Amino acid sequence: MSKTVKINKVKGGVCAPKGFHASALSAGIKNPDDPRLDLALIYSLVPCSAAGTFTTNRVKAAPVKVTQAYMKADSVQAILSNSGNANACTGIEGISHARQSAKVIAKELGIRQRQVALCSTGVIGLPMPMVRILPKLPELAQNLGPKNGDDVARAIMTSDTTKKEISISVKIGDHTVKIGACAKGAGMICPSMATMLCFITTDAHISSASLQKTVLECVDESFNRITIDGDMSTNDTVIALANGESGMPLIKRNSAECKQFREALQHVMLAMAKGLVKDGERVTKFVTVEVKGARTYLDAQKVAEAVANSALVKSSWNGNDPNWGRIIHAVGYSRAMVREELIDIHIGGKAACLGGLQSKTSMDTLRNIVSKDAFTITIDLHLGKADYQIYSSDLSPEYIDFNRSEYAYWKQARKDGLV
Amino acid sequence: MSKTVKINKVKGGVCAPKGFHASALSAGIKNPDDPRLDLALIYSLVPCSAAGTFTTNRVKAAPVKVTQAYMKADSVQAILSNSGNANACTGIEGISHARQSAKVIAKELGIRQRQVALCSTGVIGLPMPMVRILPKLPELAQNLGPKNGDDVARAIMTSDTTKKEISISVKIGDHTVKIGACAKGAGMICPSMATMLCFITTDAHISSASLQKTVLECVDESFNRITIDGDMSTNDTVIALANGESGMPLIKRNSAECKQFREALQHVMLAMAKGLVKDGERVTKFVTVEVKGARTYLDAQKVAEAVANSALVKSSWNGNDPNWGRIIHAVGYSRAMVREELIDIHIGGKAACLGGLQSKTSMDTLRNIVSKDAFTITIDLHLGKADYQIYSSDLSPEYIDFNRSEYAYWKQARKDGLV
Repeated sequence: MSKTVKINKVKGGVCAPKGFHASALSAGIKNPDDPRLDLALIYSLVPCSAAGTFTTNRVKAAPVKVTQAYMKADSVQAILSNSGNANACTGIEGISHARQSAKVIAKELGIRQRQVALCSTGVIGLPMPMVRILPKLPELAQNLGPKNGDDVARAIMTSDTTKKEISISVKIGDHTVKIGACAKGAGMICPSMATMLCFITTDAHISSASLQKTVLECVDESFNRITIDGDMSTNDTVIALANGESGMPLIKRNSAECKQFREALQHVMLAMAKGLVKDGERVTKFVTVEVKGARTYLDAQKVAEAVANSALVKSSWNGNDPNWGRIIHAVGYSRAMVREELIDIHIGGKAACLGGLQSKTSMDTLRNIVSKDAFTITIDLHLGKADYQIYSSDLSPEYIDFNRSEYAYWKQARKDGLV
Repeated sequence: MSKTVKINKVKGGVCAPKGFHASALSAGIKNPDDPRLDLALIYSLVPCSAAGTFTTNRVKAAPVKVTQAYMKADSVQAILSNSGNANACTGIEGISHARQSAKVIAKELGIRQRQVALCSTGVIGLPMPMVRILPKLPELAQNLGPKNGDDVARAIMTSDTTKKEISISVKIGDHTVKIGACAKGAGMICPSMATMLCFITTDAHISSASLQKTVLECVDESFNRITIDGDMSTNDTVIALANGESGMPLIKRNSAECKQFREALQHVMLAMAKGLVKDGERVTKFVTVEVKGARTYLDAQKVAEAVANSALVKSSWNGNDPNWGRIIHAVGYSRAMVREELIDIHIGGKAACLGGLQSKTSMDTLRNIVSKDAFTITIDLHLGKADYQIYSSDLSPEYIDFNRSEYAYWKQARKDGLV
């Protein structure tokens, strides 16, 4: 896609577009003594067109189920989110907890319960500590303001080490439109028509149907192109809200303005997606895996995903080892059509393997490239014209160590009398 | 399958069955200063019926390609194997190296070149140091003897910490038959109609066709049921040789004797397969993942493989964390038909999750179970009658650390003038 819009960074995160307010506070969801922000609200002063994509995991968290039903029935005007508890595998009680929160927030904001989208992230299988959440909801609504975008980005962090946030302005037709977004990622991240939490706000004027189409297209080229550990979460959600407050006329489907908006939205989503990989749990390297010359698009995707998800390949990247033998072994088991003797592998533009054989490039040259924080692996199958790109990371001993135990959550839940 | 044969352990490994000799020595394949055994030969005094299964990786090592061609054309009487170099991604030169070794060994043994099966295991992408291998082949043939089974089991080890070897005797009909086997595993291990190296010898009298059928059936319930890191090697090979030297009459297809032989072979293969998992790279736990109540066999397999391959699930096992939330999240993304509210998960026979919800079992009880060296996870989907079982392991920080670099291999290859 050729670039047609000029993108300017602006401040404000999800509050950058006109008419969006936000707030966040600490409800001690994980642990009453933890002062970190864990409850957040985004609110549009007027009802919005809305689009959403959700996890394709068959085990879906309660807020995913509730939000999918709400969005079918009504417009969206607010997003209530929390970290510290995924409200997943919590049965009827979990559904009831999600609805109860939406009800309280709706009453505070003077909107309908079904206009509140809900997102949770955190440990799976524990009931929500409603005793700590419910009393905080009125305060959350009262604290809404036009400058709290940052706080939302911070409140949804779990094992993230930095907040993931962007806001831009673009000229669409004759009007200046703003788009803001925040996201959280870190673990349980794998491409599969689904993503982690990402909230997008815009003052563009677009129908829900056009917004949904555009969001799906952009997700396919951003969040669906990343992998950290190959594990897909029960809570993945992208919600985009467009309130039309920029004053522009309605963006018509397939118009030049629609293309410009798509390009801007794509920029925002790709920035968020890459941000998730860079801040993946204990990740030290950002690796772009580029597949070219595949017979079909699906074959290119299979090869890229096999390489990007291989534990052995990711371990070698962690060790600064330009190990093309492990890369080609993953290419071979990807189930794509490949012919060993045609496969070229370039690392940072330098040939590592040509026609399935070790190239003449010195190993020290290749080692210097994979010792960097970011590099690109290019695999050319020389069988056709299809290509695919994926953003991946190394896998570190520290990732395993970090994920060895969530036992502390259970102990707190027992203390809370929840289990 | 009900047990019908009594299995007695005997000594001797692959040399336990009558008429099999073996030898092994150190050729310094990885490094001339390394005194470990790395070159091995198994030889039957008479030509054998033979069966083989090979990696389904589309990138196949030279010895796999050569052996598949040889076995189509001729009987097998010897297996030549080496560790330290996989002879994979080595092009025409690699094929020529494999053939050259077979030719020398065949001449020494007075058999045809195509009667020599070849297996290599080690690093991918480096040419074989033939300058060190070729001079050792005559000595290898001359050293053949009926008591060297152990040496072969040791010579094929790479990152294995213990040799994997078994030999048994069983009564089939009125005759005593022996079966011996050795295997190597450790990393790049994933179930997919393929295995690591495993050599099986028997003095049973069976046709190649019946042996092949029996081997495939047994592989499907042993080597295809294990996973360590989800990575499938370029060199996986199982070869079974039957020389008929026990003096029994030919085992007829579908006879009672055939069933007895299958049962004995299954015992041997399952012991080897479980041995590979237990000695997986930096593995601390042996975990049996049992899926029940799936709608279809394929669904049961998908669920078992998703759970057994999840980096997050395997990390939690490493941390003694009975984290059923991570297990159910992998069940959900397995692409099998599941209904969250019907899923039961038992850990070591104790309920962890019932109907998709946390059970009443104390977390300390569950934690005690997953703190053991071996335990079983049972997932009942309550949707049908299909089941599947897989043998898996934890994933440790030490696995990643161990696999960070194979750079030393490349440095040695450069010293050898091979790259």
